[in-house]
Amino acid sequence: MTEIQFRSDFGVELVDSMGGDHSIVRAARVSSGSEAGDEKRDKGLINFLARDRHGSPFEATVFQFKIDVPLFVAREWFRHRIGSFNEVSGRYKILEPVFYMPAEERPMKQIGKPGAYTFEPGTITQARHSRVMHRQVAEMAWMAYEDQLALGVAREVARNVLPVSIFTSFYWTVNGRSLLNFLSLRHVTDDTTVPTFPLWEIDQAAGRVEELAKQVAPEAFAAFNKHGRVTP
Amino acid sequence: MTEIQFRSDFGVELVDSMGGDHSIVRAARVSSGSEAGDEKRDKGLINFLARDRHGSPFEATVFQFKIDVPLFVAREWFRHRIGSFNEVSGRYKILEPVFYMPAEERPMKQIGKPGAYTFEPGTITQARHSRVMHRQVAEMAWMAYEDQLALGVAREVARNVLPVSIFTSFYWTVNGRSLLNFLSLRHVTDDTTVPTFPLWEIDQAAGRVEELAKQVAPEAFAAFNKHGRVTP
Amino acid sequence: MTEIQFRSDFGVELVDSMGGDHSIVRAARVSSGSEAGDEKRDKGLINFLARDRHGSPFEATVFQFKIDVPLFVAREWFRHRIGSFNEVSGRYKILEPVFYMPAEERPMKQIGKPGAYTFEPGTITQARHSRVMHRQVAEMAWMAYEDQLALGVAREVARNVLPVSIFTSFYWTVNGRSLLNFLSLRHVTDDTTVPTFPLWEIDQAAGRVEELAKQVAPEAFAAFNKHGRVTP
Amino acid sequence: MTEIQFRSDFGVELVDSMGGDHSIVRAARVSSGSEAGDEKRDKGLINFLARDRHGSPFEATVFQFKIDVPLFVAREWFRHRIGSFNEVSGRYKILEPVFYMPAEERPMKQIGKPGAYTFEPGTITQARHSRVMHRQVAEMAWMAYEDQLALGVAREVARNVLPVSIFTSFYWTVNGRSLLNFLSLRHVTDDTTVPTFPLWEIDQAAGRVEELAKQVAPEAFAAFNKHGRVTP
Repeated sequence: MTEIQFRSDFGVELVDSMGGDHSIVRAARVSSGSEAGDEKRDKGLINFLARDRHGSPFEATVFQFKIDVPLFVAREWFRHRIGSFNEVSGRYKILEPVFYMPAEERPMKQIGKPGAYTFEPGTITQARHSRVMHRQVAEMAWMAYEDQLALGVAREVARNVLPVSIFTSFYWTVNGRSLLNFLSLRHVTDDTTVPTFPLWEIDQAAGRVEELAKQVAPEAFAAFNKHGRVTP
Repeated sequence: MTEIQFRSDFGVELVDSMGGDHSIVRAARVSSGSEAGDEKRDKGLINFLARDRHGSPFEATVFQFKIDVPLFVAREWFRHRIGSFNEVSGRYKILEPVFYMPAEERPMKQIGKPGAYTFEPGTITQARHSRVMHRQVAEMAWMAYEDQLALGVAREVARNVLPVSIFTSFYWTVNGRSLLNFLSLRHVTDDTTVPTFPLWEIDQAAGRVEELAKQVAPEAFAAFNKHGRVTP
Repeated sequence: MTEIQFRSDFGVELVDSMGGDHSIVRAARVSSGSEAGDEKRDKGLINFLARDRHGSPFEATVFQFKIDVPLFVAREWFRHRIGSFNEVSGRYKILEPVFYMPAEERPMKQIGKPGAYTFEPGTITQARHSRVMHRQVAEMAWMAYEDQLALGVAREVARNVLPVSIFTSFYWTVNGRSLLNFLSLRHVTDDTTVPTFPLWEIDQAAGRVEELAKQVAPEAFAAFNKHGRVTP
Repeated sequence: MTEIQFRSDFGVELVDSMGGDHSIVRAARVSSGSEAGDEKRDKGLINFLARDRHGSPFEATVFQFKIDVPLFVAREWFRHRIGSFNEVSGRYKILEPVFYMPAEERPMKQIGKPGAYTFEPGTITQARHSRVMHRQVAEMAWMAYEDQLALGVAREVARNVLPVSIFTSFYWTVNGRSLLNFLSLRHVTDDTTVPTFPLWEIDQAAGRVEELAKQVAPEAFAAFNKHGRVTP
């Protein structure tokens, strides 16, 4: 059996981008026909756009990421319809034996009602048991996958046994406005004012996305945070 | 342990719809300002729209389905971005122990290259072995899921061990044009002229979708088939 | 010359709809797997969805309107990309001589800076002069349109002379969530908390849309208004 | 009166872009997990994607254009919903007196039925008369616009008298797949196999768009043309 690998982190790479703060400003200025300003006025304009939710200029900047996350995280990601995805296919490709293993800091215990859970660390027993289950199922499922492949069963049938903890890879092309919408819902910070309760794992990965994206359009992110992380 | 259930079929229910052939005709006639015609002229108009790919009038009819399929089928379904989804949440709900089991008619053997596979029935050994693997992994994973829940592990963590063969349920609200695009890619018939190689399972489920939808807009589907199942 | 007509109001007709409050509730309940509730619990659920911005269930209700507005209003309407349009074509059809004339209550004077204008009624001279200009240009342009048609010039060329005050007609098919987004931006009420400064004419027409739509999904609109008319 | 300007051409500028053929290839290869190839294999892959309509990798390349066209052309352009627009606002800005004038090569006479017109050059009388009408209406409307502004009438009211021949400017951000869809419908070449009858003016402008875009992704355009200009 191929040796399988467990990981608790997520892969987030900024592959490419188009524009930045300057293209947001440029797109906004066409509406009013105002002249290009200096740095300070541009910053003020971006701030105004975020505050008053003039969202369309934020679509003039585009990002492309390569993302490596477990299937259960990818499923949430793909719910965001304004953007483009290209993903590893379990029909075309023999998958890689890389599975998710919750890290120690992953809260294990949920309290409260659907839509308003809070989470606590969980007991040592809970964490240990859950991690053992993650490992055992991944190992058995991978063996079942490889056995079927060895017998000549089609990839697209054999993969049915794999758990949603298996990692997948995809390219994500997304404009700035749709990205801010994603981050408003999937990454919570002290500035968050929008009611949202993201899955712990997507929150971690989305945080990495934000770190990279804000280097491309720092003023846009500053304004987004200043105004409560509401989608413009 | 809760007794688990295996199924080889898919749940497809037409929950609601808006309009039909008449609303396609009505939407088309606003462009040219032509008078409402008799049945024969309406049929001719729909035929013309499909042939010449005037697609927007097909958006004037809307369908809502309730779909029950395994996760690996749902993942393909959700790639279709023009439409709306509401799905069972493994974060909020204790899932049902219903898993996919390939039926005898499911071809098991793939031949050729990615993007151009053909499939053959597979040997008895292949089919039998694959079905055993489907069963064993599902049983073990379900046990691991229930064990974690019994220990108080959060639902959204415990479910990570479940395989993509588990069933999910969702409502799908989709307009007629987007539905025809889905069917052009996911359900192959003798009329298909678009190059497409859908997964066997989604082809089956999409076929059920088409049976129900064509009762709502029979002339639209007749024209779609007549013109090679190309998205208008 | 065909006699031309001036109008100051807008045509808004609810042609068809699918679902209502009950389909929002049904779509939401599939996530948590909760049982259908009584009327009071359904109302509470819709309120929760609007408050916490669980927007996707609002996509399970669909509306279809027939809209008659001047081109300059239609142009703003068509900026809303989540929805479907079928419009009168000036290429295919000889247009109707119906033009917009500002009513007395239309504020005529703008004060302040782009993005933060306020409006005042305007002097009698302003109003009278503007109305005369609307009339004279419409009359001259219509004559120029008909003259070209009489000479055999193509419709799609002749219509270039027509002003944006001419009325157009279109069908608009839109789901509940996208409709609420439209209304949050284009119709201001005492409940509005989102920063927005809609054009006076689209505000009037959108108000008519809201009156009709809220009869289809009264609890959804009650919750929308209660929570500041923020798009869920 | 400000002197007004007539133009018969269209402004099309490629402002920015992200990726090109290589990003289409990269996005496609993630699905099958195949290794990066040499130039010849990459070309073959793009050809395969276009032929078999694997469209999503074409979304991995993005273009941004600045477009100057008359309103009646912009209205068709904005019907393409997968993409982003930022346009001059007649509410915020005093517009420029630039109007469309049909050039001599613009066919003036339409023959046949809606949806299947053909066009012929038109007589000298038709062309001359139409051009005079374009000029006279533009001049009178512009005077009526300036008169209202001089009296203090709000910009958003005064502009109602302007004809759809007036020029507008907008930024258009669009991914490669949506761009190919636009070009398949709006620019006809000898390679076109899709039934479409674009407006003469948008066909001209779209041709300029294509010239610029194909320098960014030459193999993608070669494959698009080779396979009948069908949207992948």
